[in-house]
Amino acid sequence: MSRLRAALDPKSVAIIGASENPNKVGGRPVHYLDKFGFKGKIFPINPSRSEVQGYKCYKSLGDLPEAPEMVIVAVAGDHAIGAVEDCAKAGVKIAVVMASGFGEVDPVEGKAKERAMVATAHQHGMRIVGPNSQGLANFGTGAIASFSTMFMDMDRASGHVAMLSQSGALSTVPVGFLRQRGIGVRHTHATGNDADITVGELAIAVAEDPEVKLMLLYLESIPEKKYLEELAAVARDRDLPIIALKSGRSEAGRQAAQSHTGALANEDRVVDAFFEHHGIWRAQDMRGLVEATALYLKGWKPKGRRLVAISNSGAVCVMTADAATTVGMPMAKLAPETDAKLKGILPSFATTTNPIDLTAALLSNSRLFGDILPVIATDPAADAFLIGVPVAGPGYDVEAFSRDAAAFAKQTGKPIVVAATQPSVAQQFEAEGTTVFPTEVEAVTALHQFLAHRELMARVAARPDQAPPSPSAPVSDTTSMLNEADSLALLAARGVPVVPHRLCRSRAEAIAAFEAIGGPVVVKGCSADIAHKSELGLVKLNVGSREDTGEVYAEMEAIIRKHGARFDGVIVGAMAKGRREVMIGAHRDAVFGPVIVVGDGGKYVEVFKDTTLLLPPFNAEDVKAALAKLRIAPLFAGVRGEQAMDVDALAQAVVMVGELMRDDAAKVTSIDLNPVLLDSAGRGCVVVDAVVFQSQ
Amino acid sequence: MSRLRAALDPKSVAIIGASENPNKVGGRPVHYLDKFGFKGKIFPINPSRSEVQGYKCYKSLGDLPEAPEMVIVAVAGDHAIGAVEDCAKAGVKIAVVMASGFGEVDPVEGKAKERAMVATAHQHGMRIVGPNSQGLANFGTGAIASFSTMFMDMDRASGHVAMLSQSGALSTVPVGFLRQRGIGVRHTHATGNDADITVGELAIAVAEDPEVKLMLLYLESIPEKKYLEELAAVARDRDLPIIALKSGRSEAGRQAAQSHTGALANEDRVVDAFFEHHGIWRAQDMRGLVEATALYLKGWKPKGRRLVAISNSGAVCVMTADAATTVGMPMAKLAPETDAKLKGILPSFATTTNPIDLTAALLSNSRLFGDILPVIATDPAADAFLIGVPVAGPGYDVEAFSRDAAAFAKQTGKPIVVAATQPSVAQQFEAEGTTVFPTEVEAVTALHQFLAHRELMARVAARPDQAPPSPSAPVSDTTSMLNEADSLALLAARGVPVVPHRLCRSRAEAIAAFEAIGGPVVVKGCSADIAHKSELGLVKLNVGSREDTGEVYAEMEAIIRKHGARFDGVIVGAMAKGRREVMIGAHRDAVFGPVIVVGDGGKYVEVFKDTTLLLPPFNAEDVKAALAKLRIAPLFAGVRGEQAMDVDALAQAVVMVGELMRDDAAKVTSIDLNPVLLDSAGRGCVVVDAVVFQSQ
Repeated sequence: MSRLRAALDPKSVAIIGASENPNKVGGRPVHYLDKFGFKGKIFPINPSRSEVQGYKCYKSLGDLPEAPEMVIVAVAGDHAIGAVEDCAKAGVKIAVVMASGFGEVDPVEGKAKERAMVATAHQHGMRIVGPNSQGLANFGTGAIASFSTMFMDMDRASGHVAMLSQSGALSTVPVGFLRQRGIGVRHTHATGNDADITVGELAIAVAEDPEVKLMLLYLESIPEKKYLEELAAVARDRDLPIIALKSGRSEAGRQAAQSHTGALANEDRVVDAFFEHHGIWRAQDMRGLVEATALYLKGWKPKGRRLVAISNSGAVCVMTADAATTVGMPMAKLAPETDAKLKGILPSFATTTNPIDLTAALLSNSRLFGDILPVIATDPAADAFLIGVPVAGPGYDVEAFSRDAAAFAKQTGKPIVVAATQPSVAQQFEAEGTTVFPTEVEAVTALHQFLAHRELMARVAARPDQAPPSPSAPVSDTTSMLNEADSLALLAARGVPVVPHRLCRSRAEAIAAFEAIGGPVVVKGCSADIAHKSELGLVKLNVGSREDTGEVYAEMEAIIRKHGARFDGVIVGAMAKGRREVMIGAHRDAVFGPVIVVGDGGKYVEVFKDTTLLLPPFNAEDVKAALAKLRIAPLFAGVRGEQAMDVDALAQAVVMVGELMRDDAAKVTSIDLNPVLLDSAGRGCVVVDAVVFQSQ
Repeated sequence: MSRLRAALDPKSVAIIGASENPNKVGGRPVHYLDKFGFKGKIFPINPSRSEVQGYKCYKSLGDLPEAPEMVIVAVAGDHAIGAVEDCAKAGVKIAVVMASGFGEVDPVEGKAKERAMVATAHQHGMRIVGPNSQGLANFGTGAIASFSTMFMDMDRASGHVAMLSQSGALSTVPVGFLRQRGIGVRHTHATGNDADITVGELAIAVAEDPEVKLMLLYLESIPEKKYLEELAAVARDRDLPIIALKSGRSEAGRQAAQSHTGALANEDRVVDAFFEHHGIWRAQDMRGLVEATALYLKGWKPKGRRLVAISNSGAVCVMTADAATTVGMPMAKLAPETDAKLKGILPSFATTTNPIDLTAALLSNSRLFGDILPVIATDPAADAFLIGVPVAGPGYDVEAFSRDAAAFAKQTGKPIVVAATQPSVAQQFEAEGTTVFPTEVEAVTALHQFLAHRELMARVAARPDQAPPSPSAPVSDTTSMLNEADSLALLAARGVPVVPHRLCRSRAEAIAAFEAIGGPVVVKGCSADIAHKSELGLVKLNVGSREDTGEVYAEMEAIIRKHGARFDGVIVGAMAKGRREVMIGAHRDAVFGPVIVVGDGGKYVEVFKDTTLLLPPFNAEDVKAALAKLRIAPLFAGVRGEQAMDVDALAQAVVMVGELMRDDAAKVTSIDLNPVLLDSAGRGCVVVDAVVFQSQ
């Protein structure tokens, strides 16, 4: 916790605008520092009081016996600006600025004030949290520099979850959810406008706290990626799971974010790819952010995702299988030996295939759960367990079930969850330490998230290519299109297979090309000024003779010249073959840098968007995993007796495009290869059309 | 409530196997009848007691002073069979058989016992609920013929929700959910094995109870459709919403259902189509079944689905817009006048575009909610409202907010929901009668379900074509394929456009056809024995001359004869044109009768499954609504500057196929038209390939 230590574990805290009233913004931090056992010095500052909440009060920063490491600036508007300047000059390390009315209400003047404040701070080596920050709360050190009302009725917290957010509301709502489930939080920080210290930078410091076992992030926009990349690296090194709720998933959401904070709009699919690349689980909503928390804190080391479900209700068995299918969790196929053993334990009318329906037999034999769990646990296919107890009134020994379930989890270390609607049943299982969800849907969803996230983390940790991430060089304003011949040449030089072709500058060259390549050929007009050739009649397929080739050459030259465009020649190319038109694209995202797109090709790419994104660096295995997500993925493996396609070649081509985009010297800003003709396995793929843009 | 009145409102109830102990299966109904104020006569039957729970007890059915209308059979196994026979002979109207060990454990002998029991009952005009039934519970009449333990700690219930299920657990779990939210249930019935009275038939009787305002169904399989159709008709007549949770959505779920009850596996997409056809909302899981209940009970008459969201948290605004997009709910675009009025009320830094971010300004002005709601309500785009209050500690006048929200809802009748995580906030709104959800996701999801369901119900009610539903004639075991010429002829006779063609029986006829149709033509071998022509070389496109046509004729005749197949001739057809290959299919579902499939065509239909289902009768508008759900739907409207396609012609062709399938005299069991070539608007569509099967 070297960096930003003073934000999380200051030796002393002063509060400018300290109030005697713990219900006021300037009173709450004093109250909280005291209440949550802050061990450092507390210096209230208020010119009109000599004491605040039992602490000696100072008239001004200058009156303090020492420069405090942290100052909470709880005065409003321009007073805050003055206070920040005083702090910087006094040698304060961290100023937490709660005042609002800056960039969040006025993207021009407000932002300018923020910049000025930060510049002053940096001159003196001070860092700023905020402005418009609800504040920081580290319950580990008791450094609660926050005016959130939520901590009023909280006891000394001692959890292992860290929550970080710009938004004040979203720093506390998840904490409220977790409290309702008896889960403690160690950190909850709301950084506000992030004028200096961003959520991401603070999160790196929090991730270094060894007591943090799970990190939750709420982000509304990601203005830069470097801190999140560093955070991901720190988390990877210590196997710390991170779940991020990045809102503005939808166009309507992005508009809302922009209108209320002027937040930069990230392209959502790129955000997905970024998080996945770094092993961060992206929650879809508040539920997804907090729902699986308890499971992360168990210390389980799952080996797979195959589910075994057990219930005393056949209906719950069916619905659990449905829910598992919905989230993409396979039901474990138990071994014949397991089935045989279960048949020896369960009554004849129970179901021994997974999901296992114990029926009301559980009423007459309360040991059923305890007896069958160890049997199933030895089955190599049983990765994780769900126990559904929808009803259990008088006659059911729920205490025994819950003891057996807890003992089982302890012995095997295998993930287990319970679905129970009745509060009385749920409480019994919870009391024994098993996590309970109201229905099988929540149980399966949370379990699957945990297991899939752990799988993702393992994949990211095992990634052989740990090359440095791509720089996110600012996108150049002036870019220009290469003509197709240059585009193809550039790609070919980088190892991307392109269609055999020649750029011809005369009718004679075109005819020679026809002969060299062998007809029929494709003839295309070539001009760096013309992006859409087909519309102008500059693409002719199946040109079958020397004479026709020469004729087409002449026509195309005339068309290009008629349009006043540069005439770069005419391309004569082979009629490439392939079984599916796919596409490879690339562009530079202003925040995330190079983004590679691969997917189904053809003219309806933008309509169907059956594409997937990758952020370099990545290897061929990463590409193949991404291709497997496509709707057309079954075609790659071969359907209806067709041969498999050359996915290896396609993956290799995509890797090469990724490397090209990572090479700043190549100055490529965007690439659009559509179609790329993909042929059967062993027959490769080939770029037929290419549009490359370079920066000047 | 004429039909099955005695099941829901019997004048007298006898309990065979009555017990003094209210915690036993035979004791609970006696206890419940008493506790829930049943007004009829109660006759406990137990040979070893003279009194049960304060009621005179009888030795046998024969000892009763009168034949009871309902008998609860609470004795086990074969005793139950004897008791049912006694009841039938005694003139009982309804026997509720709780005993298990029948069809659910033994699909052969158990089912046979059920059939015998039902046959005996029917001989004497008696009807049976069960066996393996947890029982019936009508809290309106106090007729609680159930051994569910759940009612033990329930007070006299007085709700407007009816829950029906085969499963006992699933008849009570939803009731438990609703109770936790303070929502009462009027009926909850668990019918068990449905040997005689099915969930569907009982539901019709329940739907006739005027106090029922919402019906919930849990179904694991739908063995016949007629009762559900009748139920839907009854519900439509009285505008009663029905939500059905049909489990076994997934293959894993269907397997689980089959292994534990031998349930018939319905094809899930057909179930979807059936429910939609009848205006029944299909819940995806338990949450979806109960989550929106409160909204259905408000009596709202919504006009549309456009959402206005208001919060004091910008983050909640963003997440609400995201959640709305996810469920397909549009955000209302407010009028400029509304914006102007809001600007007059809200501080400058609040957001007046929807979603409306009040910011912390709500702290200083508690009237904000009350002031802006009426302004927005006058905007014609504002169909429904969500108020998000994620945090509201000291300083927030939540009481005022909740009063204002409730008053607003009352005055305008516009749907309004609240998202509030803090229990203290939620309770305030609930106390004023506004429905609260923990987060914006649940709030938006429930609100959207309610509005979309109401929209569906309105659409179904307005459907002009109220022709009787298709009969679900049993699928014939012996079907045979028509040859392609007969298939095309049958379709053409029913008004489905087919490609111009001639069936030729000689080389000369083939050549004549070439001349009549005009080349190039398509030539296909025709045999009722050969389904896959291409594989055998029996399809030749682009045949360009008289001579070639004659030659191909001869080749194809030879191929067919070589395979020992019937030679029905050779089809010479026009090279049809179209812009997209679509498909139309039809088959007879064993339960639901004719099912029409329409969607994207070509050879990968089974891989991509971009198809949608319709159950006849339907009209062209229904088809167009279904087509709009396809992934390829944007192509129909025209993309990238292309012309729109002839969706009218396609819809008309699909209607004709639907009518053909409804016509039992046509004996068509399945139709596979792929491709159907769809051309630009005004240019129609044409069936190019047809495979029709008929029953013998």
